[in-house]
Amino acid sequence: MQPTPAQLAALDAADPLAHARGRFRLPEGLVYLDGNSLGPLPAALPDALAATVAGEWGDGLIRSWNDAGWIDLPVQLGAAIAPIVGAEPDSVVACDSVSLNLFKLASAALGLRPGRRTILMEADDFPTDAYVMQGLARLAGVTLKRVPRADLLAALNDDVALLLLTHAHYVTGHVHDMAAMNAAAHAVGALTLWDLSHSAGALVVRLDADGADFAVGCGYKYLNGGPGAPAFAYLARRHWDAALPALTGWMGHAAPFDFAGDYAPAAGARRLLTGTPPILAMRALEAGVATFAGIDLAQAEAKSRALVHLFADGAAGLPGVTVDAPPAGRHAAHVIIRHPQARRVMAALIARGVVGDMRPPDAMRFGFPALTTRYADVGLALAALQAVLASGEWQDERFAPRGMVS
Amino acid sequence: MQPTPAQLAALDAADPLAHARGRFRLPEGLVYLDGNSLGPLPAALPDALAATVAGEWGDGLIRSWNDAGWIDLPVQLGAAIAPIVGAEPDSVVACDSVSLNLFKLASAALGLRPGRRTILMEADDFPTDAYVMQGLARLAGVTLKRVPRADLLAALNDDVALLLLTHAHYVTGHVHDMAAMNAAAHAVGALTLWDLSHSAGALVVRLDADGADFAVGCGYKYLNGGPGAPAFAYLARRHWDAALPALTGWMGHAAPFDFAGDYAPAAGARRLLTGTPPILAMRALEAGVATFAGIDLAQAEAKSRALVHLFADGAAGLPGVTVDAPPAGRHAAHVIIRHPQARRVMAALIARGVVGDMRPPDAMRFGFPALTTRYADVGLALAALQAVLASGEWQDERFAPRGMVS
Repeated sequence: MQPTPAQLAALDAADPLAHARGRFRLPEGLVYLDGNSLGPLPAALPDALAATVAGEWGDGLIRSWNDAGWIDLPVQLGAAIAPIVGAEPDSVVACDSVSLNLFKLASAALGLRPGRRTILMEADDFPTDAYVMQGLARLAGVTLKRVPRADLLAALNDDVALLLLTHAHYVTGHVHDMAAMNAAAHAVGALTLWDLSHSAGALVVRLDADGADFAVGCGYKYLNGGPGAPAFAYLARRHWDAALPALTGWMGHAAPFDFAGDYAPAAGARRLLTGTPPILAMRALEAGVATFAGIDLAQAEAKSRALVHLFADGAAGLPGVTVDAPPAGRHAAHVIIRHPQARRVMAALIARGVVGDMRPPDAMRFGFPALTTRYADVGLALAALQAVLASGEWQDERFAPRGMVS
Repeated sequence: MQPTPAQLAALDAADPLAHARGRFRLPEGLVYLDGNSLGPLPAALPDALAATVAGEWGDGLIRSWNDAGWIDLPVQLGAAIAPIVGAEPDSVVACDSVSLNLFKLASAALGLRPGRRTILMEADDFPTDAYVMQGLARLAGVTLKRVPRADLLAALNDDVALLLLTHAHYVTGHVHDMAAMNAAAHAVGALTLWDLSHSAGALVVRLDADGADFAVGCGYKYLNGGPGAPAFAYLARRHWDAALPALTGWMGHAAPFDFAGDYAPAAGARRLLTGTPPILAMRALEAGVATFAGIDLAQAEAKSRALVHLFADGAAGLPGVTVDAPPAGRHAAHVIIRHPQARRVMAALIARGVVGDMRPPDAMRFGFPALTTRYADVGLALAALQAVLASGEWQDERFAPRGMVS
């Protein structure tokens, strides 16, 4: 059942988050449903970044580490991200990538649970999570165990040092009950590490209240921090003193500018820092995080859920595609529509100005971030999808696969 | 002995690299002698970065991973850096930080030398190198051995998996004979990892010809890539197939967009990539590396050496300071001048428009990058130093220590 333009217009008119779209520069006429992969450009960034480049770097030069506050950006940005994921400010820092932050926190978990030899994670999670754990397991001489979601609880035992979970799955959209999984892990003495890449900025997350031990998340998706933006890392207060990551760089030292010979961890989450922070990227992430000022994440999650359902329901009747029904209850802010030639159909859609992405072999993924997506976009996207499928234009040579990124 | 303005003007007039200064935006009237810590702003960057932000991110959005070539930037930038460090193009990638790249390559070395349990490095090298190795040694269960420079050769034995050396020392300016140290390490079956942070872009480096196994280097110093710029990593061709870092992220996978369940390393140095590349920072590094177009590094090294000697000779006669004599033969492009109140003296110098930095407890460091430093700057810096010392103005309250970064 496809919604009518009038229905969608009424929903947009009543949307309490409609104003947030004005915080971004979006190309005229484009229906952008891939903010789950790369958030759009915050309108405030071009001027802010130009000032950082010309003023702070060009004129201030080395003095800007103090004078422009560069040295504090990882901690300051962590504090700005903290409320978005339900954490206290000093528990979060912005740094490096999701992959590297996973390694840091998982290695810290092994140190906190000596004698335990297993890292447990869900099979079919986002690949980099598995790759990072494979590398860590090989180096540390522990076992990585990957099991289907249904078998996770049964696999928890007293050899498990760490349970690594993705809060919202990058394909299925399934959302774990964070409090329940933390409790189950803690019941056998295991620690938990949450990947919030598809949650932070899209869903309500309550790391502190739900008892998480560690978490990481992405800066370039829902947080709108720009391509390859720094990620973030969370360390629960109860681990501030004892957690020691294996990646111990100078910016995580208690006194980096003493140039001491031996590593001594900084207080709290600051010990998760490693190398010199990338200032231009930090400024972009700062502008991205600022787009969440005053946003009620419960409203955002509810809006994205409504958009996902409208789109999924509308697509269900289209010829040649199958829609993955959004999981009952909470789910991610994206939805999967399958077609045997997903890559070509998506290319044809993009040519019509509707941008999503695809995941092999047959999944087209459409994301509905609450800050930038209008209800009207659902109608435009459904109309374009219908046109692409009805015309068969995706079979055209110009939509043959090309390029590395899908 | 202080050079006369006329002597310095003649040297500038005859300088074959004088034109390179026009490739940067330097603040009017500032004598910037800290390019060894943060290189100045390339003149081409503000426009290039604005185009990346507005055009590639703002308009192109997710499509720019292919259309703007974002996905290839780490490899492409590596290829651009390669000739600066004497490497073939596919042996170098730009990514992450020096700290993280050290961990990757050292962990790969342990895998290539199973059974060997020692990482050997020089005592008093830049702290992050030691911190990273301490973290790796703890996780992998190997021993980190740190010995003075004079004892390095004696400490090489058949338990050493890796010899980690800094090519040009960040304080003393000592430069190792890379070919000789590689040969000595290889004679006992050990591998070598070179930190080029104070060499790349300042000195002639010949990684391939001198037989290095691994190397890392900094993007934000002599390469002018901006504050916290991505670093680079080098993997000699003979290790392309067998070297496997413990940090195994999705961008180092043979086929990242297949989303395969198990890690499989990409060919060559690409396997050293981990998370999604930070595009804004990559564009800045690209502009920084481009400032080396057509530069003869032998000329650059010779010019920096001449500048260092002029400055050191001129400072030797000033009251209250002692000059660390530049090492005989090759040395880094900076020099150390000591004063018991180095931090205050440097602050007073900066107030007079001469910018260097300091390293505890008593070292003022002055860097002389060949692309941006004029011979005339030596005279201006010496005059300012003389004035600060003669007046005793550094004792003024406004030059008391403040801020975190020194």
